[in-house]
Amino acid sequence: MRWVLPDFIQDALPDEAADIERLRRLMLDAFRVRGYRLVQPPLLEYLDSLTTGAGQDLKLRTFKLVDQLSGRTMGVRADMTPQVARIDAHLLNQAGVARLCYCGSVLHALPSSLTATREPIQLGAELYGHVGIDADAEMIRLLADVMALAEVPAERIDVGHVGLFRALAAGAGLAPEREEALFDLLQSKDVPGLAEVLDGVAEPQRSALLALPRLYGGREVLGRAAEVLPRLPEVRAALAELSRLAGMLQDLPLSFDLADLRGYHYHSGAVFAAYAGGSPAALALGGRYDAVGEAFGRGRPATGFSLDLRRFASRGARAPARGAILAPMKGDPALAEAVAALRADGEIVVTELPGHAGTWKAAGCDRQLISGGDGWTVAPLSEER
Amino acid sequence: MRWVLPDFIQDALPDEAADIERLRRLMLDAFRVRGYRLVQPPLLEYLDSLTTGAGQDLKLRTFKLVDQLSGRTMGVRADMTPQVARIDAHLLNQAGVARLCYCGSVLHALPSSLTATREPIQLGAELYGHVGIDADAEMIRLLADVMALAEVPAERIDVGHVGLFRALAAGAGLAPEREEALFDLLQSKDVPGLAEVLDGVAEPQRSALLALPRLYGGREVLGRAAEVLPRLPEVRAALAELSRLAGMLQDLPLSFDLADLRGYHYHSGAVFAAYAGGSPAALALGGRYDAVGEAFGRGRPATGFSLDLRRFASRGARAPARGAILAPMKGDPALAEAVAALRADGEIVVTELPGHAGTWKAAGCDRQLISGGDGWTVAPLSEER
Repeated sequence: MRWVLPDFIQDALPDEAADIERLRRLMLDAFRVRGYRLVQPPLLEYLDSLTTGAGQDLKLRTFKLVDQLSGRTMGVRADMTPQVARIDAHLLNQAGVARLCYCGSVLHALPSSLTATREPIQLGAELYGHVGIDADAEMIRLLADVMALAEVPAERIDVGHVGLFRALAAGAGLAPEREEALFDLLQSKDVPGLAEVLDGVAEPQRSALLALPRLYGGREVLGRAAEVLPRLPEVRAALAELSRLAGMLQDLPLSFDLADLRGYHYHSGAVFAAYAGGSPAALALGGRYDAVGEAFGRGRPATGFSLDLRRFASRGARAPARGAILAPMKGDPALAEAVAALRADGEIVVTELPGHAGTWKAAGCDRQLISGGDGWTVAPLSEER
Repeated sequence: MRWVLPDFIQDALPDEAADIERLRRLMLDAFRVRGYRLVQPPLLEYLDSLTTGAGQDLKLRTFKLVDQLSGRTMGVRADMTPQVARIDAHLLNQAGVARLCYCGSVLHALPSSLTATREPIQLGAELYGHVGIDADAEMIRLLADVMALAEVPAERIDVGHVGLFRALAAGAGLAPEREEALFDLLQSKDVPGLAEVLDGVAEPQRSALLALPRLYGGREVLGRAAEVLPRLPEVRAALAELSRLAGMLQDLPLSFDLADLRGYHYHSGAVFAAYAGGSPAALALGGRYDAVGEAFGRGRPATGFSLDLRRFASRGARAPARGAILAPMKGDPALAEAVAALRADGEIVVTELPGHAGTWKAAGCDRQLISGGDGWTVAPLSEER
């Protein structure tokens, strides 16, 4: 019998698990010193709470379970962001700004792509209670900081603004299904498809929506957009926000993609996606989602980002494997003291168990504790061990 | 609408989450310097793999899901120990001793008691490839070490030996259902019930099984057991192992409970349970389970323990909450440098966002960065902020 795991599900063996743990601590510590407080929502919730404000794709990707205690349908979380919004809205009930962060496994009933995992380790940070672009700037800088810490510096951060699409689509007066189709076509930058769906839509919305996929590039895109797009108040407000962002984050590799609307349909303002290492897929996604809290009884401005730690663990420079020190199994207090001191210094000291098959070298040891004139000292591992 | 969570499911809010994270790192670091390598098995596996070697109660407590990709039944892990045994047996394939550790959420379809959670955070360590009692002694000492680190020192560690029960039950020639009933009665130390089930069983097994619940107490129990129990080779071997353990762990608060057989039915040798803080329920459980690997194609001696981090977080001394430092939002390089230096020292520095409602004191700040003659310095938070 072969012990295979389900497709798109995997173990993290020691090297990878150590790397994930190292990055987890690095990033959570970076959040902590910036005032982001860790919360840990549960793996399971009632389905309605878990998928509130989420798009159809998240609902389809959520594993459903029946609660034997209540008979109600529960889901295993597929995204922690709505859970953290629930905590901010319902439990903390903090006046003003709240900064929260989180890290945990999520499950997807179906993988998002052929190279994706069904169990991402989602790590993210969220800022609630501030409606201004300063909060969005803080989040983008925070993302750039943690990517640099992980030695996977962001090579490009694409920024968009969902407000542009919403204003243009509202002006076009599209039915919800058609707006949904438009959304998907913009994502894939399918210009012929767009032209078809926009057939019959009034100007200037039609030309503006058709122009969005070409509004892609450096900061100059914002100037072009101001010329090409209609001078609606929402359009001007969104472009002004993006210009302020560009000014505040001049040291970061920002580019602008005004057709980029990704996310789980809950975004409402600036959105961003970070790329690195030549990967065509974004390594982290974020943006503003002011409407999500409303469903939990307390509408709060909100912006944040999240990433899958597994993808960082397989990309960054791996921490060099450190050899262990072999210690004999003896009831000698001086030995116990030497072992404790080495471990307090972060050295790995492995106790020799009698009857070990194979060499200790193969088990990862490169040094050993030996007893001599000046007590217990660390020496190279003997050849035969 | 109230956003309630399912029964026996909870959020960890910032104070508790910080405490869980602190203990997680403390314990995983203690494992690491002793040579235990971290692994991270998945939340989901095919059900047959997940419940291999497990008892009926674990199977009933496992949430089942249908895999949309394969049509097979999967389970959400309710215990990580069999997963780690699978990794040792199947993936690492290491000759000799392997030390592994893990930490992650598990889900229980039904809570194990009225005060239990359905989402314990299981943390544990396992030692494979060594059949001797030295390995059991290492595990018990490791458990005592991590409990002391968590400032929840073990007040009592009950030790038993499943080999005693197995030898006596085999000698009694009981049918499997009757053996199961006996097992349950011994767990609850139900002596009248025991006498009933043992009706008709031959001596010396009958008296020996009836005597087990009274063989409870300090090291003297082992002497009494040697007198009371039949001199079968397996009984003598088990008592000799327990005597060696008692000798090796004289500095720990061991007591012996020869009717204690807890665990998920997969144990085979010495078993142990640690108690602290006056709680009637054990805070950590462990023992030897040599047979589990067989199901994965590679029978390996194994011993280990696990605990629920949530229960430790609510018990130990909580880390004192440290106040944050408020920093103004300004594009001043000297300010950015001061902030970075404070954060590198582990201080929490929160950037002031304009338009924050409520005071910064209520948001956790107790100091602020102010600009003066000698640059940016930390000062007490102004009264009005």
